[in-house]
Amino acid sequence: MLTRADLHRLDSDDALAPMRARFALPDGVIYLDGNSLGPLPAATPARLRTVIAEQWGNGLIRSWNDAGWIDLPGRIGDKIARLLGAPPATVIVADSTTLNVTKALGAALALRPDRRAVLMETAGFPTDAYAAHSLLTLMGQGHELRLVAPEAVAASIGPEVACVLLSHVDYRTGRLHDLASVTASAHAHGALAIWDLAHSAGAMPIGLAASRADFAVGCGYKFLNGGPGAPSFLYVAERWLDAVRFPLAGWLGHAAPFAFEPSYRPAPGIAAAQLGTPPVLSLAALEVGIDLALGADLAAVRAKSERLGDLLIALVEQECAGGGLTLLSPREAARRGSHISFTHAQAWPIMQALIARGVIGDVRAPDILRFGLTPLTLSYAQLWQAVAVLAEILREAHWREPAYQTRHKVT
Amino acid sequence: MLTRADLHRLDSDDALAPMRARFALPDGVIYLDGNSLGPLPAATPARLRTVIAEQWGNGLIRSWNDAGWIDLPGRIGDKIARLLGAPPATVIVADSTTLNVTKALGAALALRPDRRAVLMETAGFPTDAYAAHSLLTLMGQGHELRLVAPEAVAASIGPEVACVLLSHVDYRTGRLHDLASVTASAHAHGALAIWDLAHSAGAMPIGLAASRADFAVGCGYKFLNGGPGAPSFLYVAERWLDAVRFPLAGWLGHAAPFAFEPSYRPAPGIAAAQLGTPPVLSLAALEVGIDLALGADLAAVRAKSERLGDLLIALVEQECAGGGLTLLSPREAARRGSHISFTHAQAWPIMQALIARGVIGDVRAPDILRFGLTPLTLSYAQLWQAVAVLAEILREAHWREPAYQTRHKVT
Repeated sequence: MLTRADLHRLDSDDALAPMRARFALPDGVIYLDGNSLGPLPAATPARLRTVIAEQWGNGLIRSWNDAGWIDLPGRIGDKIARLLGAPPATVIVADSTTLNVTKALGAALALRPDRRAVLMETAGFPTDAYAAHSLLTLMGQGHELRLVAPEAVAASIGPEVACVLLSHVDYRTGRLHDLASVTASAHAHGALAIWDLAHSAGAMPIGLAASRADFAVGCGYKFLNGGPGAPSFLYVAERWLDAVRFPLAGWLGHAAPFAFEPSYRPAPGIAAAQLGTPPVLSLAALEVGIDLALGADLAAVRAKSERLGDLLIALVEQECAGGGLTLLSPREAARRGSHISFTHAQAWPIMQALIARGVIGDVRAPDILRFGLTPLTLSYAQLWQAVAVLAEILREAHWREPAYQTRHKVT
Repeated sequence: MLTRADLHRLDSDDALAPMRARFALPDGVIYLDGNSLGPLPAATPARLRTVIAEQWGNGLIRSWNDAGWIDLPGRIGDKIARLLGAPPATVIVADSTTLNVTKALGAALALRPDRRAVLMETAGFPTDAYAAHSLLTLMGQGHELRLVAPEAVAASIGPEVACVLLSHVDYRTGRLHDLASVTASAHAHGALAIWDLAHSAGAMPIGLAASRADFAVGCGYKFLNGGPGAPSFLYVAERWLDAVRFPLAGWLGHAAPFAFEPSYRPAPGIAAAQLGTPPVLSLAALEVGIDLALGADLAAVRAKSERLGDLLIALVEQECAGGGLTLLSPREAARRGSHISFTHAQAWPIMQALIARGVIGDVRAPDILRFGLTPLTLSYAQLWQAVAVLAEILREAHWREPAYQTRHKVT
């Protein structure tokens, strides 16, 4: 039987507790959605003030050189590489995750020109499949997009598979793939591995280069704390950097963008993955979030994330028994990312009732309550409190209130 | 013979003069590069403070609904549509101009499936050609990218041409296409017209819908004052909105993004041109710039731009005679956009000497000095002063100083 005192004790031993002060979180909120939008780093407002008033306002066009704006995509990319366990000059920040999936997939197919299948999961985040399907249709070379259950991936890789394109952590269940092992299965069949790290980058040590992953993409606005719609990143394994050709081109990926040459010559290395002019304000905010993430020991982050997840499951089972929640996430911490999901037929109104009481998670259609665990900001006491609120909502059926039935555009 | 007093007199009659106070421009700078990066609107810092501290910091994930973040691409798109002379729901803000060129071209080719040529200009901004070339290569259907001189465009459109893809205003010379007339030539041959409005959006009335243009793209960071790397916009003529299919797909363009359906179903209308999660901070800054632009009468903006251009040419010819500058832009105002270019063998060091004296323009390789005219901020007296500085640099050969020879990454 867990008690509130047990959780307070864990807080007093939490080496990551001081990190919370580096975020600007509102009072009265228990934030369990950092896996959808990371909270605001305390240093971001001042950084953006500088970028806007000094660099843009006073520096004007000169800031592309003087403030190093032109170097932001590569400089931030190098910082993300450190977080991912990858060498410098293998990661660039550009565009959206959707588009980086498109780029990575096109590049992978060009490296495997004789193969005509792309293997994905039925459970993957839909935009990856939308991007892949649109690219394959556009190419019109008869590629087949093959979707299989996550647990069937390794067994489904055959000699016709050009690449696998998988989410490291499932956005609904939190199920975690063994990145190195699935990559090895792909390689054993001559296929390449593209990983979507949206729900793992910044949340755990990844050892990306050691895993031998070929390509990876990810989100700036989840565990990297880069702000709403922050630009995405794209990783290409060092061994591919000389050979890689991206399917789309733009002037920022040119070897000499300001020579304004009539023909495209790709820049050497990862820089060629850039297309248009990068969104500097959003990049500056992203860099603050990543600097913050780099200040924490990722092994400690992962350990706290696992413990928070174990405790959330245990507390829900202890406090919400009979409330109708069914655990959707793997029970074993080593097989999960950094969120815990439960199903409930009334997921939507229950989550609205939680949010109205300051406990913010989200819902994934049709019936999933999803609780993100951000070890840099979440305390164990908050976890206790969140479950207490959830238990009361279920016990008293507060979710029946008409206001909680209203659907919103974004869930 | 123009005198300083003549220009001061024009300032006292300038109905747009009060607009200058709505920008935060540094003292001691004459900014002639608003066609590359528009100056900072005075209202932008406060708007970004609100978006960052209140909407992101306090609102957290709730702001996607409560602060209307999810509606920003369409809402700002509708405002841009007003600036362009287009009806609501025909413009969306998304991604970079490079990528929107890719989307527009792919959509145009799908509407002309039996034609295999794309007509562009040798003089166009290179990223448009890079984007087009990469798309045609990816499609692998034998499309030919045909580049002709700007003045040869209309005569080069034949029955094999699927579409023309042209810059409304040439980024180097400032040459202005007659948008309606070239579009009519394209249509007369069954081809579609895609326009890159990077250097005209916000600088002149465009009458885009009346021109019958099929597609258009443009930049948020030039005359729309959206900030460095601001997102781009994409226009699709209302008559195509039901039929159009974009070549790339992502979850924000899905009919029901938060249903997380396994298959892609495009949203109705222009919304389907969205791919990934939009960069909210950059979008918020863009909206401030566009609101500012909407506060000025575009006919008056254009009239002042033409007059500023005429005066700049006249002053340079009067004050810098013998200095080695050759006018590159059309002399006739009606045939120009909102910048004036001169060639000079020492363009680079001359511009560095100008910038060192607070007169900021830019250089386009190899020998073009480019001066952007932003009617909302530029005074006639500043124009006089800028030419006086230029004349002195040329007369005294200040540009020979070693510091001015240093090349920068971004020009």
